[in-house]
Amino acid sequence: MSTTKPTESPIHAEPRPTAITTAPFPNSNKRYLQGSIHPQIRVPFREVTLSPSKAFSTGKLEENAPVLIYDTSGPYTDPDVAIDVAHGLAPIRRQWIESRQDTELYEGQNTLLSAHSAEHVVPSLQRQPRRAKAGKNVSQMHYARQGIITPEMEFVAIRENMRNEVLKEGLSELERKHRLQGNNFGAAIPEEITPEFVRQEVAAGRAIIPANINHPEIEPTIIGRNFLVKINANIGNSIVTSSIEEEVEKLVWSTRWGADTVMDLSTGANIHATRDYIVRNSPVPIGTVPIYQALEKVNGKAEDLTWALYRDTLIEQAEQGVDYFTIHAGVLLRYIPLTAKRVTGIVSRGGSIMAKWCLAHHQENFLYTHFEDICEIMKAYDVSFSLGDGLRPGSIADANDAAQFGELETLGELTEIAWRHDVQVMIEGPGHVPMHMIQENMTKQLSICNGAPFYTLGPLTTDIAPGYDHITSGIGAAMIGWFGTAMLCYVTPKEHLGLPNRDDVKTGVITYKLAAHAADLAKGHPSARYRDDALSKARFEFRWEDQFNLSLDPETAKAYHDETLPADGAKEAQFCSMCGPKFCSMSITQDVRELAEQQEAVAASV
Amino acid sequence: MSTTKPTESPIHAEPRPTAITTAPFPNSNKRYLQGSIHPQIRVPFREVTLSPSKAFSTGKLEENAPVLIYDTSGPYTDPDVAIDVAHGLAPIRRQWIESRQDTELYEGQNTLLSAHSAEHVVPSLQRQPRRAKAGKNVSQMHYARQGIITPEMEFVAIRENMRNEVLKEGLSELERKHRLQGNNFGAAIPEEITPEFVRQEVAAGRAIIPANINHPEIEPTIIGRNFLVKINANIGNSIVTSSIEEEVEKLVWSTRWGADTVMDLSTGANIHATRDYIVRNSPVPIGTVPIYQALEKVNGKAEDLTWALYRDTLIEQAEQGVDYFTIHAGVLLRYIPLTAKRVTGIVSRGGSIMAKWCLAHHQENFLYTHFEDICEIMKAYDVSFSLGDGLRPGSIADANDAAQFGELETLGELTEIAWRHDVQVMIEGPGHVPMHMIQENMTKQLSICNGAPFYTLGPLTTDIAPGYDHITSGIGAAMIGWFGTAMLCYVTPKEHLGLPNRDDVKTGVITYKLAAHAADLAKGHPSARYRDDALSKARFEFRWEDQFNLSLDPETAKAYHDETLPADGAKEAQFCSMCGPKFCSMSITQDVRELAEQQEAVAASV
Repeated sequence: MSTTKPTESPIHAEPRPTAITTAPFPNSNKRYLQGSIHPQIRVPFREVTLSPSKAFSTGKLEENAPVLIYDTSGPYTDPDVAIDVAHGLAPIRRQWIESRQDTELYEGQNTLLSAHSAEHVVPSLQRQPRRAKAGKNVSQMHYARQGIITPEMEFVAIRENMRNEVLKEGLSELERKHRLQGNNFGAAIPEEITPEFVRQEVAAGRAIIPANINHPEIEPTIIGRNFLVKINANIGNSIVTSSIEEEVEKLVWSTRWGADTVMDLSTGANIHATRDYIVRNSPVPIGTVPIYQALEKVNGKAEDLTWALYRDTLIEQAEQGVDYFTIHAGVLLRYIPLTAKRVTGIVSRGGSIMAKWCLAHHQENFLYTHFEDICEIMKAYDVSFSLGDGLRPGSIADANDAAQFGELETLGELTEIAWRHDVQVMIEGPGHVPMHMIQENMTKQLSICNGAPFYTLGPLTTDIAPGYDHITSGIGAAMIGWFGTAMLCYVTPKEHLGLPNRDDVKTGVITYKLAAHAADLAKGHPSARYRDDALSKARFEFRWEDQFNLSLDPETAKAYHDETLPADGAKEAQFCSMCGPKFCSMSITQDVRELAEQQEAVAASV
Repeated sequence: MSTTKPTESPIHAEPRPTAITTAPFPNSNKRYLQGSIHPQIRVPFREVTLSPSKAFSTGKLEENAPVLIYDTSGPYTDPDVAIDVAHGLAPIRRQWIESRQDTELYEGQNTLLSAHSAEHVVPSLQRQPRRAKAGKNVSQMHYARQGIITPEMEFVAIRENMRNEVLKEGLSELERKHRLQGNNFGAAIPEEITPEFVRQEVAAGRAIIPANINHPEIEPTIIGRNFLVKINANIGNSIVTSSIEEEVEKLVWSTRWGADTVMDLSTGANIHATRDYIVRNSPVPIGTVPIYQALEKVNGKAEDLTWALYRDTLIEQAEQGVDYFTIHAGVLLRYIPLTAKRVTGIVSRGGSIMAKWCLAHHQENFLYTHFEDICEIMKAYDVSFSLGDGLRPGSIADANDAAQFGELETLGELTEIAWRHDVQVMIEGPGHVPMHMIQENMTKQLSICNGAPFYTLGPLTTDIAPGYDHITSGIGAAMIGWFGTAMLCYVTPKEHLGLPNRDDVKTGVITYKLAAHAADLAKGHPSARYRDDALSKARFEFRWEDQFNLSLDPETAKAYHDETLPADGAKEAQFCSMCGPKFCSMSITQDVRELAEQQEAVAASV
């Protein structure tokens, strides 16, 4: 970061380190596991220390093994790492990328920036960009198809497989039985997730590892239906509110609570510098919708957009390290009239922009006509496609209509083209869909897009609850996650109403984290159930602090408990204020078990 | 109510009228529809007045018809009704009941009360009780089986059928298409719900109308899979906290937001008088778990419970007007050992109490052995059974196990017995169940209990989110509602942690209301979709106030919007702070439509 302070900056030029949340979770340590194929990799987990169980009849203490939890929070929760937002995170992937010897540093497009008035007031964190050497393809899919297990692949395998890697125990008989019960809609999740399994899934296009070579700071993650369901949080300022500083904290804040990727949807001033700060400080993949920045460059006039300007924007963002791009290449001219009778028209921002462009010029969408040109850019940096659903339904009335499914057909065609270039692809999905029509979305997407990962926004299962759309959509998200969606884009309580604040972001992330976990349980992912079991055991044994610490949000769980019973002694109590001491079923059950044991003992002695 | 003020009362003896929420919703009027078979009945709705639409190209204003909404809030939101908590609501059903000439007033058990020390400090609202004349059965099921359409049946038919009754329009072609799409799991909901259809469903046992003859204040509601999914809110003090006054306001508060029934789960002091206030002031059916009060009478010692004491408690509560009783008659001695290896044992309070009693005496559950005696009481007052699932799973690990399904078999057997007495029955269900195991619960319940309505608590789809269990369970609730559950028992954010406060109750109710509505959409109930469509149309047309007022929680929707754009002018704006003015897709869509119209006009003129 430049040490020269800009004068008269309209925003805080340097994020204050104190504004970033860095504390570890209660009773939790950062623990790293080493790779075996690639010993240099260190996969982070949160290790939660538990108190011992007290046998209810004898009173004997029994130790409980620590529980490891998938950890998206990055170095921010590691007290051994010094955080300096002005310099960004350590580039842990740099050596992995360099050792492949298929990339080169080059000048890049920084000079472009001076064209945009607001940008120069914020110092940039831009590093010298890297790209594929001429004729090389640096995508994870390309490596996978050549049979190469990259460090990124082993990293995600260890991450997904934490149960076997750490707990050194397989599934219990009961877990295995539960896994087999009910429908899993054709998911094929092995009991042990190996690096080779990861490679196969990436090679087949059923999973992606978004990992731009210009984003060496990330701890890689995998998005595919045979892995843990991931969630995305959207951040970004709109012209109405918020600053760079807030956006970096929103990034850290959302990954703290479990966001697996973050999309920067900024549309206001300082769009380039904001993104620099976000990417350099992000331990998770970053996605963007490049058309937003392109539109800023033409002062909001959609009809003035051109391929050349859009192309430059893609390269600019690829050089910054954006890991996936939402590209609305399926909004074709012929689909636009299909939205005319809809209750809510086109509700995707990118979709509506492209529709306006197409209609104004009466020409085919340039993202579609230049799709192979875009593939060339993607494979030079390993940016993944997130093929945008510009025509997704924005209301129950518009669900599963001809416009939506027409676009999906085109996304299937584009997936094939991207795969011919060995470029990673996922497909965006709806939107607003009533429960009985959700499954059709998944079935069609899997068949039309040949198993490419689905990435859905909800879907919202009713329109009548603004203020609670994290829940209306959390229902749809859990269900479609079970049906096979690989990543769920969060919705906050402010959806349809305003820009989310810090509390809204947290509520949205936690809601989607629990929806994703519910889906993981239903799919039978081997790394899911043990956390429920550990928490329920703690609950039954009145180990209150353990129950809080194993939960998705220890702070809130503890605060709710303490609202009525704040005394320290209440954390040892065999009841809470919900039922009181005489009516606690768990406490009575312990009496019942004791009684049963005594009766058995008497019977045995007779 | 006695006018003598008690001295040194430990709680507020008379609820202060000011503490009760009575304001109508914004832009909403109470509207009553008259019966045709029974012209004396007046079925209440909330009528929401909308502003006109502005045609986007011509600017011409078009009126929007008012929207009618199912209204559980009772007279509290009718400004024409004077509310006096100290006297209770008007007994609108009294004449219906009296005109059947099969009941009589009698002395009742009030004298029993003096036995319980805390009771006398609060004046009772008890009215003289009514019971069936000797040899008569006054249950709605009994009437239905004799081919009688009662005022209660016509009332619920009008309530369920509001679209046809009021809007005078059938389903649109699109709605009809959506209804047919996807699976509805065998629901058979007609496009028009007639009083005769209601009668048939009640006669068959597929639906119940909980309506104690001693609760003439209720506006009847129907619980069955071929009707709107209903929700229940639990209130009630535990020994740790809360007063009568708060409980009445919690009742009013939860029905205001949409609770269709309320369970009074009080376990503390003043249990009888609290219930008097709740029943006399409740426009919705009230449920209780009589074993809680019985246990208070034996000072919390489960082993001291007797049939005689329990029987008196049932009669005491039936005389007060409780509409349904949760009775844990399926917790049989032989099922208790099946819970020994569970992670969380027995988590139903009533279930654990009965288990303790059974084990202490090594005798069969007296609720099971005296089940026919209980039926005699139920039919003398028309109290419905809610057969308790005392062995429901309290964790994902314990879902769908032998204890749970063993008890369900017994509940099926008891359903048959109750039906032989023409007593109304619903069946309580779990609990904690992962998504892929939910459907098995519904399928088994329908088959074992011959289509008796299912009434489930959630189910919670994961254990790892204490503090957010309204959502973990809202997911399961929406799904099982779609699969066929008739009523959903709400869960608040405080579940497992403490007694819910006012905000928690509201959050729980709204969450369950949206889950129930999502299920209604998926089942294709004809009175569901029009509200989504009206709200989405308002949203697309930037009629912000209409969007708020049509939502489940107008206050919160408006407050969230106003957080960033509080000015009055923002309610006319074609954007919100989420995307800002340049990036609002709905605004751009209107440009797109205008552009398309112009192009068509040009093409036509050439």
